[in-house]
Amino acid sequence: MTGSVFAPPSSDKKILEEGLSFTPKFDEHGLVTAVVTDARDGELLMVAHMNAEAIELTLESGIAHYFSRSRAKIWKKGESSGNLQTVKEIRVDCDQDAIWLKVEVAGHDATCHTGRRSCFYRTAHTVNGKPVLVVADDHRHFDPDHVYGH
Amino acid sequence: MTGSVFAPPSSDKKILEEGLSFTPKFDEHGLVTAVVTDARDGELLMVAHMNAEAIELTLESGIAHYFSRSRAKIWKKGESSGNLQTVKEIRVDCDQDAIWLKVEVAGHDATCHTGRRSCFYRTAHTVNGKPVLVVADDHRHFDPDHVYGH
Repeated sequence: MTGSVFAPPSSDKKILEEGLSFTPKFDEHGLVTAVVTDARDGELLMVAHMNAEAIELTLESGIAHYFSRSRAKIWKKGESSGNLQTVKEIRVDCDQDAIWLKVEVAGHDATCHTGRRSCFYRTAHTVNGKPVLVVADDHRHFDPDHVYGH
Repeated sequence: MTGSVFAPPSSDKKILEEGLSFTPKFDEHGLVTAVVTDARDGELLMVAHMNAEAIELTLESGIAHYFSRSRAKIWKKGESSGNLQTVKEIRVDCDQDAIWLKVEVAGHDATCHTGRRSCFYRTAHTVNGKPVLVVADDHRHFDPDHVYGH
């Protein structure tokens, strides 16, 4: 990544896993997986992706930035809805291809674009061998049509 | 996916996000992201990937199965180390390309192959513009050399 503050990940597993250099292992699209939990109670809010620029912007500003794969650009989460995420802690996993953000959510205290607190509002099951979902949380903190102006 | 119990995801966003059919949106490699937390206290333990077979095996057996990208095969987590994961709940996110497993870990109560409870044992920071890591949890629940016989 030209201009990135990140050095390339070491090919030495020991250095990658036990070292103290933050060298994200980006995939073929230049992305790592970002797992986002609520700093208050640990609830899983969303899964997104970050490129080098998104991680740098997040580290610098303390506000979560991601890379939107559908729009192919940097995405300052909550810019439209007001549900900005203040980052309380960033962690990285053993092989440095996944990042964990513990955040405080502003605005409606909602992260999902459907208006729910978390994107994970449905549980998965099999019923007679058929894979089905059950809604576990249907509380809408905001009206998406109103907030996103559809 | 030939032989999979999963129907292809709907191209209708409303059905995908609000419907009750479990239709995982696999990427170009046939995978979805799996986020794994401890059912006891919500601690993030690991991030992995699942193909259709891994999800089916997990739903059927109640024991977490993943797809190992490095070994290119189904991976019954904990088969070598004894740290099997009993799945207490499965959730799926709005667009069905990420899955959340809440698990109980057997054995050493450790998930990371380095012997630590979680793969996310380091925090990330910038110090004078340089991206660095700090070890937040260095407790080894097992000796990897002993358990994996290296």
